[in-house]
Amino acid sequence: MKKIINNPDDLVIDSLNGFIKAHKNIVTKLPECNVIVRKNKNEQKVGLIIGNGAGHEPACIGFVANGMLDANAVGGLFAAPDPFTILEAIKFADNGQGVIVLISNHAGDILNSKMAIDMAEDLNIKAKAIILHDDIASAPIENMSDRRGSTGCLYAYKIMGAAADNGYSFDQLVELGHYVANNTRTLTLATATGTSPVTGKPMFNLNDDEYEIGLGVHGEASMLQIKVEPSLPIATYMINKLIEDLKVVAGDIVSVCVNGMGQTTLQEKLIFYADVERLLEKAGVAVELPLVGDFTTSQEMGGISLSLFKLNNETKMLMEKPHNSSYFPTFK
Amino acid sequence: MKKIINNPDDLVIDSLNGFIKAHKNIVTKLPECNVIVRKNKNEQKVGLIIGNGAGHEPACIGFVANGMLDANAVGGLFAAPDPFTILEAIKFADNGQGVIVLISNHAGDILNSKMAIDMAEDLNIKAKAIILHDDIASAPIENMSDRRGSTGCLYAYKIMGAAADNGYSFDQLVELGHYVANNTRTLTLATATGTSPVTGKPMFNLNDDEYEIGLGVHGEASMLQIKVEPSLPIATYMINKLIEDLKVVAGDIVSVCVNGMGQTTLQEKLIFYADVERLLEKAGVAVELPLVGDFTTSQEMGGISLSLFKLNNETKMLMEKPHNSSYFPTFK
Repeated sequence: MKKIINNPDDLVIDSLNGFIKAHKNIVTKLPECNVIVRKNKNEQKVGLIIGNGAGHEPACIGFVANGMLDANAVGGLFAAPDPFTILEAIKFADNGQGVIVLISNHAGDILNSKMAIDMAEDLNIKAKAIILHDDIASAPIENMSDRRGSTGCLYAYKIMGAAADNGYSFDQLVELGHYVANNTRTLTLATATGTSPVTGKPMFNLNDDEYEIGLGVHGEASMLQIKVEPSLPIATYMINKLIEDLKVVAGDIVSVCVNGMGQTTLQEKLIFYADVERLLEKAGVAVELPLVGDFTTSQEMGGISLSLFKLNNETKMLMEKPHNSSYFPTFK
Repeated sequence: MKKIINNPDDLVIDSLNGFIKAHKNIVTKLPECNVIVRKNKNEQKVGLIIGNGAGHEPACIGFVANGMLDANAVGGLFAAPDPFTILEAIKFADNGQGVIVLISNHAGDILNSKMAIDMAEDLNIKAKAIILHDDIASAPIENMSDRRGSTGCLYAYKIMGAAADNGYSFDQLVELGHYVANNTRTLTLATATGTSPVTGKPMFNLNDDEYEIGLGVHGEASMLQIKVEPSLPIATYMINKLIEDLKVVAGDIVSVCVNGMGQTTLQEKLIFYADVERLLEKAGVAVELPLVGDFTTSQEMGGISLSLFKLNNETKMLMEKPHNSSYFPTFK
């Protein structure tokens, strides 16, 4: 297998050790569990954490930073962390004002996060889940809460992270979290599969002349196979689906995230972003605070995910607040 | 070809348009030429620019930012910009105090940059080239100035960028530039080829069970083919070569750059970085201000480049100065 790793059994712990060495000014790891936490803890705020499977880096370790998450409980490759690991993240993040547990909607993450929240409550820590469900390909809008979480979760990390660091109360954060969850939409395009660093096998199969639209971040089945096409027709198809689902209309202001799934070049992401911005502006929709980069990958899979988030004054101001993550753009 | 682009003939201009849309707070493009420049120009400094071929993004467009470069003249895919384009970048960057033209050592870049400098002098603009030659695989140390430029050029962008923004004179910058050029070393490992977005063909051939060590950023011939190996033996081989070449000894302080060539996952880069840091510390060498990310890619090529830079108090202080590039890490 052509991956620059050591023992595949140590994949996650080895990469977390590299992460805390590479960013030792910003983060550290709790002893004896795979929880990445802020180095300089802000003690005057509601806690904000997420648990997620490894293999999607920089998500979510890269978003533990001042102005973003307090902690990230990391599971195995593409596997949710166990409830005890999530509980350690909650305990770290609690300053007596309670902890919001973000959950990207996948069965294992829901189950284990809810068990961790129950255990936290037994320890008299107030904790509440906010479930993120931005992937429009995974269920119809009538069943929005059944949808998977995807790259659009990034908006919750940044906006709620800034809010928590700027003194929002527990209840204000819960309300804001629901706004963010309900106003984010994502759709994914795969051009090539990635390889599991554990098994050495391709994550899914894709023909040489085909792309897939609407698959999940772990290679879950897509909604549509198309023949290979240039950027503009793909952008047109995807943005129309997202606009319709989010009910974006002329006069709205949105942020767009063009996320590389792994092997997609920055040239491609930029070309695709330019097409998306033009299409939105043609529809009378203003684009502000764009995110173009690799935020939630799926190993070295080829393709992009496209997310839309409907901005209002409050969320725009929170998106612009300073942070010290090396994996999120600078807007100033 | 599975690349998310439109007309391959428009590849560079389309991606530059995406770049200035995605970072409109930080950069813009000069009219009628492919030069990316800072949006908020600092008028009180020596200018600092580079010209380079496209296809290595974020290099170098992503390093045009406050505290880094003033301008980047962009050529075709893997092709140097013409002298007139470089001249426009020089003219933009000049504030009457002269302009330093960084050159990553490749024949076309040298030729065209030197022609642009001659033309600038005809316009009474003081301009001087600093040639960067960090790739140890491309010539023996006795002929260091024949070596290719590679990812280690990043140290010049950051350190000289910070120095120029902080009031260094032309002559001080030239002296600093030579220090940086002479104290940076890079070696590259390829695990898989990338595809040219212009021809749709693989950039080079690589057997399924082999890696190549020492090739250039455009796929130039390597110095060694090895069988696929884990991270630690590769890190050991590469770091030993770099330590020997840079004459790093116990007690020295270095910065390390682990750069992804395109499709390499962040997990792999972090695992490799952890191995490199451990090996250096075992040799009594302290590692500070590490850079782990994608800085100079070669399309979606697999592999990493490893750079060492010998820090002193001055360059450490300049590395830590603030900047607003979204493609360079935060150290605070």
